[in-house]
Formats: sequence, structure tokens, C-alpha cells
Amino acid sequence: MTKPQGQDGRSKPIRLTEVGPRDGLQNESRFLPTKSKVAFIEALAATGVDEIEAGAFVSPKAVPQMSDSDEVFRLIRRAAPVVYSALVPNERGLERALAACAQKVAVFTAASETFTRKNIDATISESLRRFEPVVTRARAAGVPVRGYISTVAFCPYEGRIPPDRVVDVLQRLLDLGVDEIALGETIGRAAPPDIRRLLDAALAHLAPDRLAFHCHDTYGLGVANSLVAWHEYGLTLFDASAGGLGGCPYAPGASGNVATEDLVYAFKASGAIINVNEAQVVEAARAVAQELGHPLASRLSQVVGQAGAKPVSSL
Amino acid sequence: MTKPQGQDGRSKPIRLTEVGPRDGLQNESRFLPTKSKVAFIEALAATGVDEIEAGAFVSPKAVPQMSDSDEVFRLIRRAAPVVYSALVPNERGLERALAACAQKVAVFTAASETFTRKNIDATISESLRRFEPVVTRARAAGVPVRGYISTVAFCPYEGRIPPDRVVDVLQRLLDLGVDEIALGETIGRAAPPDIRRLLDAALAHLAPDRLAFHCHDTYGLGVANSLVAWHEYGLTLFDASAGGLGGCPYAPGASGNVATEDLVYAFKASGAIINVNEAQVVEAARAVAQELGHPLASRLSQVVGQAGAKPVSSL
Repeated sequence: MTKPQGQDGRSKPIRLTEVGPRDGLQNESRFLPTKSKVAFIEALAATGVDEIEAGAFVSPKAVPQMSDSDEVFRLIRRAAPVVYSALVPNERGLERALAACAQKVAVFTAASETFTRKNIDATISESLRRFEPVVTRARAAGVPVRGYISTVAFCPYEGRIPPDRVVDVLQRLLDLGVDEIALGETIGRAAPPDIRRLLDAALAHLAPDRLAFHCHDTYGLGVANSLVAWHEYGLTLFDASAGGLGGCPYAPGASGNVATEDLVYAFKASGAIINVNEAQVVEAARAVAQELGHPLASRLSQVVGQAGAKPVSSL
Repeated sequence: MTKPQGQDGRSKPIRLTEVGPRDGLQNESRFLPTKSKVAFIEALAATGVDEIEAGAFVSPKAVPQMSDSDEVFRLIRRAAPVVYSALVPNERGLERALAACAQKVAVFTAASETFTRKNIDATISESLRRFEPVVTRARAAGVPVRGYISTVAFCPYEGRIPPDRVVDVLQRLLDLGVDEIALGETIGRAAPPDIRRLLDAALAHLAPDRLAFHCHDTYGLGVANSLVAWHEYGLTLFDASAGGLGGCPYAPGASGNVATEDLVYAFKASGAIINVNEAQVVEAARAVAQELGHPLASRLSQVVGQAGAKPVSSL
């Protein structure tokens, strides 16, 4: 199944979901002021990304960094082609998201029971039951739904997660009626063979254009894994965070999601069709990093705007 | 040709050449004192790497950071299984390397005429003529010779370099009698398709076990490219620099060679046979980074020794 899908997918444009304003900022220790979040989202919209996860309608106690998502959605000037999406944990979250005119909502569970319990205080089955009315009502309102599955390869508590456990959750999310699935490689430990096993299993259940790859760059494999998902399996939906913002709650000091600018460069250099300006992404992330008071983790952020030939002995 | 080679190579152990003490340190702005270089090399030898490029017998005016290579070679306590190698630009350099008991020497040229002129003030042909007596005398002394080719995909002055220009230099180095070739992806701009085109051409001229891949991580593609070279082409010889030390003279502030610990993690997680302890590599690099006064660029250096589960909301 792999080869024809891969070759088919590679001729289609990459659709990039910028998750910096949500997955990035929610994992930063400092709260980014509402005004700065709005400026960040507006700057990202101008880079050419297809979708921006602009906030989360979750409990402000659980995730204080996202407590102003209602206001952020109200204040942003929207760019026509961009889809502004938000995380919703339950019906109350969905109501807020619909009131805020989110154009897509995302429910989230995991492939690991321990992770799900610790992350959202529910079993996987409970989380799915909770999503049922959310998906039904969102679709009735004409708002597409993404279903996130975290820990698709490794769990910080349970270790390696077999693909069949991921596929079980994936099929149940599809049965609920979600429009797309995002596979979250939460702790960044997976390598290409893990991604191949996962996608071999997942793509027996849905088409590659409904499957997003969401990875973290904790161990430096984010770009390699994303390229495998695209080149060998024809995935075209990818998540990334400007500047690699966000860190990892399971490895303090580590980098966050794969950096948007690094992934965009890698795709462009590999011949993919992608219309995102990576230099503008770096600029947008730099403004945020300055406010958060730490340097960016991405490779491109160290090169863009700083290159200059300085011929010394080198190999 | 690709598939059988790749499958053959993947069953063989990876041989890692640690180039931090040479390619890493030569590109650092601060001079690392001799004593610290010796401690660094000894710490690296204990990590399980197969080879350490421990210095360069070049002009101290051209590369002041390597001006103490004679002393470094004299002072290091050697670990039996490790091969200690050095760069030599000419016969004078070879004499110093032989006096220092270097167990392998490396000559260096490039696939770009402009780069070669700016880097070693010679045409490619002149550089090869200069190497002829070096290779002959080294081999007569029983010392194997590596031939580096820089700018195998991109040149900072000329842009994209076609594989046939690389292969032309490669064949001339083989004709001189070098034992192995190292392909230097000098400015880190290449992506997997560039590596495939390059290796498709190069492997028509020599076996994969004589071809080393030496890459820089400037644009974040070092791990992805190395995995392609191993997985698809069966290369087993890889260069890397502990901590990603070194930077890039053509992009101030950028990261240097692909980091040893990131590459080792990627190979292990991909199922390769490699006996290097990546946590020890991080420790060795940290000691140097502290003296040089800057943080390490590698992903592993942000995780190793700092991990701890801290369950907060996350995908």
C-alpha cells in the first residue's frame, strides 16, 4: 500500500497546521500576554500556513496559558484562506469555540491509558464517550473536527506503544465521525522504523489526506520522521510550531514541537509543494521568544538573517 | 543498486568518526587549551566511538585552533580500539602526523573550484597533485588515508554542485590510492533527494564500506540525511561532532557538524548496530562547552540528565 500512496501524496501540496500559539505557548512557563498572542497569530497567518491552532477552550486552572483563548479569537484579524482552530475537551469547550467562531475544533485523547488518565483524568473509553456529543454538535454546526491521539509511539509512563493500540483508538474516533486524525508523537523518541510500523497500520483505516502527523523534536528526529511520513506514505498534513516553541513537559529544557521553519525548509529542499515563507516564520517566533526570554530551538532561526560568507578553512 | 547495498549495510555495525576535536574546535572562536583538548579526546575515546579526528597538521596561521596538534597527539593516553586520525594538507603535514603517530591521515579538497581556492588556495587539480606524494608516503608507512571532498551538494559561493563533479574528484582521489572517501556536506543545505542523487552516482565507483558521510546540521537535516545514507544505501561510516560543536563559518551562529549524540540516538532508535554511549558523549561535550562559554546545539544535550516526568496537559 505504501508506494502508490507515497507517490500520489508527493504531488499534492503540504498543508501545514501551525500549533505554536496553542501547543507551543501552553508548554511555556511564562504567560504570553493576549496582545502578543494576537500579534503572533496575525504574523503567522501572513507566512502562508494553512491552519493555525489559535487556542484551547479548556479549564484555565488546568492550562493557565490558554485562559484568554476567547479574547484571542475575538481580537485576531482573520486572513481569508487560513483556518483558525481550537482544542475542545468537552461540550462546554465546544460552546466557547463556536461562540468564538473557531473554524475547526479538536478533541484529544491518547493511545496510552496512563497518559490519558494523567493528562485528562479519564480512561480512553471515557474520553471517547465525552467526545461523542462534541463531534455530533460540531458537525451539526458545520465545523470540522480533528481527533488527536497522543503517545502514538512512546508514552512517558508506559514506554513503547504498539501500533494496534493506536489503531484501535483511531478507529473509534473515526466511528464517532471525526474528519481527520492527528497522530501525536508526544515525547519525540520515535525513529523512522516506528513511524513506518505506525503508518502501515493506520493507513489501512483511512486515507493519507485525513491523517496528520504531529511530532515533537525532543530527540532531534522530528524532521527525519516527517520526511518519511511524506515521502514514503504520502501524508500531506503536518503540524509544527514556529521557532520550535513549547518545550516538553516530560523533559524540562528540551525542545518542543518540530520547528515550523525547519520543517518547511526540509520539505522545500526535498521538492515538496509548500507555500510557507520560513524566514517570516522565524521573525514571528523571534518576537515571541524575546518576550518569553529564551532563545529559539530551531536550526533555521540561527541562520535566517545571519548568513554571510566568511571564508576560513573548513570541510 | 540501492536496495541490496542498503540491506547489506544495515546488518553491519556503524563506524563513527568523532570529529569534534578537529572540525568542531577549529570552527570555535575561542582556543581550547591543550590540556582541555586532551581531556576531551580521552573522554570521547571512552564513549565507544571507533575513530577520533584528534587534530590537524596545518599552518598555525591558517587555523590557530589546531596549532597544538603535535602536543595533543603526544599527550593523549590512547585507548586500544580507537583510531586517532589527523588532517594533513601536504608532505610537511604528513611528516608531523607520522611523528605524532597518527593512525590515519586525511587529505582534503572540494567539489567546487571556488571553495577550494578560498579554502586551500589551490585549484582542485593542484590540490590533488599536492596529495600524490602524501598518499604514497602514508601508505608506504602503513598509515591509511582518507580523502575528504567538501561541498558535495552545495557550495557557499557556487550554489548547487552536480553529483558528476563530486564523482570526478572522487575517482581522482581513488586513483591516487586513498583508502576511503568522506563526502562533506559542508553547509548543511542538502535534503534527502540531494543525498540520493549523490550516492547513486558515488556508489558506482566504490563500495559503501569505503564511503563516509560527513554532514553539518546547519538547516536541521543532518539526522534525516544520515539515516537515508544508512537505510537506503548501506553506508556505515559516519562523522559527527560531540555536542554539535563547531558552528559554521558561512553562517555565524549556526550549528556545526551533526551532533554525535543526536546521530547515535537516531541510529539506535532506528535499529542500527552502534556501540556508542550517547550520554557520555553529552558529558564530554558539556565540559568543553562550559570552557568555550556557549550552550550546546544538540537535542540530546537538552534531555540527557534532565528528564523527569511532570504530568501536565500535553499532546
